[in-house]
Amino acid sequence: MNGYQHLFIPGPTNVPEKVRQAMNIPMEDMRAPDFPEFVNGLLTDLKKAYRMKGGRIFVFPSSGTGAWESAISNTLNHGDRVLMSRFGQFSLLWVDMAERLGLEVELCEVEWGKGVPLEAYREALAADTEHKIKAVFATQNETATGVTSDIEGVRRVLDETGHPALLFVDGVSSIASIEFEMDKWGVDLAVSGSQKGFMLPAGLGILGVSDKALEVNRQQNAGMHRCYFSFEDMIKLNDTGYFPYTPATQLLRGLRVSLDMLLEAGMETVWQRHAFHAEGVRKAVAAWDGCELVARGPDWASDTVSAIYTPEGVDARDVISGAYNRYQTSLGTGLNKLMGKAFRIGHLGSLNPVMLCGAISAAEMALRDAGARIEPGSGVAAAQEHYRGAGA
Amino acid sequence: MNGYQHLFIPGPTNVPEKVRQAMNIPMEDMRAPDFPEFVNGLLTDLKKAYRMKGGRIFVFPSSGTGAWESAISNTLNHGDRVLMSRFGQFSLLWVDMAERLGLEVELCEVEWGKGVPLEAYREALAADTEHKIKAVFATQNETATGVTSDIEGVRRVLDETGHPALLFVDGVSSIASIEFEMDKWGVDLAVSGSQKGFMLPAGLGILGVSDKALEVNRQQNAGMHRCYFSFEDMIKLNDTGYFPYTPATQLLRGLRVSLDMLLEAGMETVWQRHAFHAEGVRKAVAAWDGCELVARGPDWASDTVSAIYTPEGVDARDVISGAYNRYQTSLGTGLNKLMGKAFRIGHLGSLNPVMLCGAISAAEMALRDAGARIEPGSGVAAAQEHYRGAGA
Amino acid sequence: MNGYQHLFIPGPTNVPEKVRQAMNIPMEDMRAPDFPEFVNGLLTDLKKAYRMKGGRIFVFPSSGTGAWESAISNTLNHGDRVLMSRFGQFSLLWVDMAERLGLEVELCEVEWGKGVPLEAYREALAADTEHKIKAVFATQNETATGVTSDIEGVRRVLDETGHPALLFVDGVSSIASIEFEMDKWGVDLAVSGSQKGFMLPAGLGILGVSDKALEVNRQQNAGMHRCYFSFEDMIKLNDTGYFPYTPATQLLRGLRVSLDMLLEAGMETVWQRHAFHAEGVRKAVAAWDGCELVARGPDWASDTVSAIYTPEGVDARDVISGAYNRYQTSLGTGLNKLMGKAFRIGHLGSLNPVMLCGAISAAEMALRDAGARIEPGSGVAAAQEHYRGAGA
Amino acid sequence: MNGYQHLFIPGPTNVPEKVRQAMNIPMEDMRAPDFPEFVNGLLTDLKKAYRMKGGRIFVFPSSGTGAWESAISNTLNHGDRVLMSRFGQFSLLWVDMAERLGLEVELCEVEWGKGVPLEAYREALAADTEHKIKAVFATQNETATGVTSDIEGVRRVLDETGHPALLFVDGVSSIASIEFEMDKWGVDLAVSGSQKGFMLPAGLGILGVSDKALEVNRQQNAGMHRCYFSFEDMIKLNDTGYFPYTPATQLLRGLRVSLDMLLEAGMETVWQRHAFHAEGVRKAVAAWDGCELVARGPDWASDTVSAIYTPEGVDARDVISGAYNRYQTSLGTGLNKLMGKAFRIGHLGSLNPVMLCGAISAAEMALRDAGARIEPGSGVAAAQEHYRGAGA
Repeated sequence: MNGYQHLFIPGPTNVPEKVRQAMNIPMEDMRAPDFPEFVNGLLTDLKKAYRMKGGRIFVFPSSGTGAWESAISNTLNHGDRVLMSRFGQFSLLWVDMAERLGLEVELCEVEWGKGVPLEAYREALAADTEHKIKAVFATQNETATGVTSDIEGVRRVLDETGHPALLFVDGVSSIASIEFEMDKWGVDLAVSGSQKGFMLPAGLGILGVSDKALEVNRQQNAGMHRCYFSFEDMIKLNDTGYFPYTPATQLLRGLRVSLDMLLEAGMETVWQRHAFHAEGVRKAVAAWDGCELVARGPDWASDTVSAIYTPEGVDARDVISGAYNRYQTSLGTGLNKLMGKAFRIGHLGSLNPVMLCGAISAAEMALRDAGARIEPGSGVAAAQEHYRGAGA
Repeated sequence: MNGYQHLFIPGPTNVPEKVRQAMNIPMEDMRAPDFPEFVNGLLTDLKKAYRMKGGRIFVFPSSGTGAWESAISNTLNHGDRVLMSRFGQFSLLWVDMAERLGLEVELCEVEWGKGVPLEAYREALAADTEHKIKAVFATQNETATGVTSDIEGVRRVLDETGHPALLFVDGVSSIASIEFEMDKWGVDLAVSGSQKGFMLPAGLGILGVSDKALEVNRQQNAGMHRCYFSFEDMIKLNDTGYFPYTPATQLLRGLRVSLDMLLEAGMETVWQRHAFHAEGVRKAVAAWDGCELVARGPDWASDTVSAIYTPEGVDARDVISGAYNRYQTSLGTGLNKLMGKAFRIGHLGSLNPVMLCGAISAAEMALRDAGARIEPGSGVAAAQEHYRGAGA
Repeated sequence: MNGYQHLFIPGPTNVPEKVRQAMNIPMEDMRAPDFPEFVNGLLTDLKKAYRMKGGRIFVFPSSGTGAWESAISNTLNHGDRVLMSRFGQFSLLWVDMAERLGLEVELCEVEWGKGVPLEAYREALAADTEHKIKAVFATQNETATGVTSDIEGVRRVLDETGHPALLFVDGVSSIASIEFEMDKWGVDLAVSGSQKGFMLPAGLGILGVSDKALEVNRQQNAGMHRCYFSFEDMIKLNDTGYFPYTPATQLLRGLRVSLDMLLEAGMETVWQRHAFHAEGVRKAVAAWDGCELVARGPDWASDTVSAIYTPEGVDARDVISGAYNRYQTSLGTGLNKLMGKAFRIGHLGSLNPVMLCGAISAAEMALRDAGARIEPGSGVAAAQEHYRGAGA
Repeated sequence: MNGYQHLFIPGPTNVPEKVRQAMNIPMEDMRAPDFPEFVNGLLTDLKKAYRMKGGRIFVFPSSGTGAWESAISNTLNHGDRVLMSRFGQFSLLWVDMAERLGLEVELCEVEWGKGVPLEAYREALAADTEHKIKAVFATQNETATGVTSDIEGVRRVLDETGHPALLFVDGVSSIASIEFEMDKWGVDLAVSGSQKGFMLPAGLGILGVSDKALEVNRQQNAGMHRCYFSFEDMIKLNDTGYFPYTPATQLLRGLRVSLDMLLEAGMETVWQRHAFHAEGVRKAVAAWDGCELVARGPDWASDTVSAIYTPEGVDARDVISGAYNRYQTSLGTGLNKLMGKAFRIGHLGSLNPVMLCGAISAAEMALRDAGARIEPGSGVAAAQEHYRGAGA
């Protein structure tokens, strides 16, 4: 009776009706003779979203975190040195995982609001003449701060320093939303999840793996102990069109439809729509007196999520709880050191300008309730004018 | 991939998720031994939404138009004189039906933007000393103009003139949304449909009938020919808990849940929420330069739908088609003589302030695209401040 | 937790998953600019299921009974003479409606278990040299007795007697299930509903009308009073791609998918599948000691429903209630004079042999519980052998 | 149009309509302020299905295999000795995982058709006076062979030998279906999944952990490297009502409903229903000439799945593919050394006798098609008589 619950967190995202319909099904036999045809088509088409021709895509019944663990444990050994950078809650957690899985992390600390430090990476790689660094990690889109990094730049640094390290990319909140080019950028392991750009419920960890990384996996002698996330088991069964354990068929059926939607529109169109939607939100933020993006400038600002500093003296937690309790709107919370200082508007997945005008309205009302002296309607007005122009 | 399609027409309205879930079912046997228990409970509880204790509720597999026809054909005879008024497309269609079904209509023409003319009714009834007028018709909510009439006032006029005519009310877009009191107001036949305040898909015509009207039905000798919409057949079968033909069980199952939601909240709360939602839209309209409500003043303005005149020189059809084609938003069209001059925002059923801020934003963008010189965000700002205040 | 509820009544039938998915949708604007394209395609394709090229299809938000009423009230006048026959509960109700709507019925009473009496019709038509009979009515499939009549034969009789009467066919439980040929058989008005061969929930009355009947409608001077079921209103709006009142869009969206399924398979295939399914049930009945079909011989036996006499001394109501209460299975009840003597197994719509083996098993268990001395598994065995052979 | 696809594999099982409805939802914010209340209630009630008061339940976005890995990697170290037994494909895979994760497995090979060898376990434990065996593994229900082991007996052996090893139980196809008593039997780690007795799609690995096992986890110094399946992370976040990464909320909402159904019925009733359903299938197998259960005698026969040897000369693969291709019925395949020799009928989860009569019919038809000389209907007849008696 109270209308839609509004969801503007950076994942899970809104599920399109067609995808929702496709998941409204009875269960099926995951060993049926016609199942492989379905699986093969799905894995092949996922490569198109990743923009890769060779290599493999693995789909695990897990969250994106599981796919992170799979990437590491199948290609690296305890004690391997890796180059990482930390500039938000998710890059932080990735570092934490790497350390707990026994990697030796060479860490670049970066101001929250910026992303992967290309110059620091260049220095570290140039200095590593013995090639002890086995992998370079880059968070393409730091979901906590709304910051997008330059993955193509990381590849350029690797190439220019002639460094053979594997390139790991956390693309959980970027792949299928903003530009990502597995082959062109020479990415070796790229992690995503079902609940972001793929517009599905959470439950699938998706991992793209280059031929180079597969070869490293094959040659790895000791390797980390692993079973559930093992490449070998998955390869063996996927090659027959099946899975080594019961797959989450309901989500796979949904993925088939969301993938069709993405590929039918074309990935370039998908990326453009995200940029278009995001710009409206950024215009709104710019119109709000005392608010600003956590991202330090337009080069870093993400097209999938905006983290927004509240004005001095306004607790962002009040904005978030007010939006939820009074206006049925879920905004993203400020994580870790942003707690209380920033809130987030997720603008990825299945959305449109009117939904975003709603989101901005909810934020405006909640901001004013929390004491911010922004002009009522100022953000919506700015966003409207953006959406009108571009929609023309 | 394009997010929600926004629906702000005055019916069908948005279906709550719980209702949608309840309709996602396999078919069932409408002659099962436990079906009567379900039917009896439903018909009993519908009375609570109608605010009636005696009489009967009939539920037809039809639109509201079918329930209109049922009301007339079961209680009136060809040639019967009835008192009606016309002030919008739906009251107009009702008059048309009455004439085509052979009634002699004494018609009060009213300016579109106003509603049932109590003084004219009083005069007509007072003049009818022989009680030739068998029924008085009143459209509680004229969906085309966004005008609400004073049904309690019609009853008062009937009482004060001591006139025994039956009181027919078209409550299609008012019952279960704005105040309606079957017993208290002495309404004899009240029509509604599933796709408005009951928050269901179209497909059920709902008709409340007073004991007085049932008695008229029983005593009626000739009556109009009818089968499908016959009271007698329905009464005979409903008394056993079944229907005279296959009922639309899927909708009935949905109705069970929406009715539970309404009654759990309480009808007074439902009415208040509609008033609260509507007021935000009216504030927005007031803020738009050159726009105004079709309703001639606050006494007439409806809490379920607002019909809005576009500024001089702005074709309302452009606003509506622009909202649909560019902003995925369905606004109500201007019907009949309002065509091109007005558009409508439906604000009944399952809604909330953020949805309405979205609707207002869509209208603002479409108005500006169509040439209206309203201030961007002006309507949303006004609505936000209303919703903030009341939500506190 | 208790598995599927088994539905083997002659409508509503089981809804295919794809159709169910298609109805799991938010509401939509039935005045949207792209709605006519949808409506036109649907009405055009419905003609393919009816096997007609000219004429019109009307889709009412109603049950099949409403479509009956529409057929009569739009083409006949009070006092018109019609030729009808009565051999089961549904042909009986049709006669009742005709009389209540003021027609003068020339009635052929037929033993329940047989169908339309071609010879009696021939005599009546031959005797009617003044062509006072305006219409001939034929129930193609009497759902109460499981009897199919020879509609092509009725046309032959009309042709051979050179009689110009309109041919009305009740095809509620036959169209989209067993052979029906609107054009080839010269049918003028053919009624069906959504909840049978069209595999949808109840809620749509579907009416096919020949050009001849449309012409009669246009020329009809007095006609019966009608609004809701009026051809004129429907024609006027359908010609623009819309409806004269809010259509049941959820069902229309489902119909689009079920129609696609029917037409993709091909109507001939649909008819064959029904014959194949039905024959298995008949083999089972033949194997049950003391049971027999109500249909008097294979010429009359219906491919959509079998009415089955229980053995002497076994109350069919016990079979039906036992199946429902103990085995979660809905069987059709014995209607009117078959009450207590027969039960029915509906075998139309979305079904397969294993479902029917379940239905037959439920009936066997319930029959034995009710005292029938049939051999356990005897019916299923016979059905299995039929399904194996034909499936080969 | 082809009716239900029949699913009689031992998981995924049939999803009840109410559960399916509960999963038909928009996405939600897994960091919402009211989410913890939901999570806490769910984790608490899961304990009731596990029959445990202390300890913890973990729910991972994974298959049951993931929960296996979690159990091992959180409580055991590389090189730890464990006692296991192998008598089917799933106990075999568990041994394989244990070895790959670096455990030293003391393995009891058992004839396929029997289960956990209590005497061999007793000998091994009695001989292990130094308590080098850190854990004893027992597959409660070997899904590949349809064999149930005596977990209470394993506990008795542990107690009688005074051995302190942890007791690991694979309850994937037993918990929530057949008797399982975490506390009473002193089980320390018990694995299950969403797609079996919990009647959900695959996607949740569920793990019950005793206080003793939690204490071992806390004291474990080295431990295996792990992140995704780490107890510590899960405990830390679950204690706040949240999860360390995005949970599969759609499945959790479904689980809430299926758990309600199980607990409302009572676990004892759930177990009895499974025994009742299973016995009908076993009666059918006994009636089939030349077929027999893989389980060596009634003490081993499982109430959730029956593995059935086909008659000499009949390839079980033909039965399975025939059932699928000709009768739309998924039967379980013969895994590993049972390939071609046996097929399986899953009879767990949401089922009823008529569904099982359908399954048995499908198997009968497919068996005969594949050359088995069983009597048509013989199995169904035997099952019917069982279901009639018990249903009385």
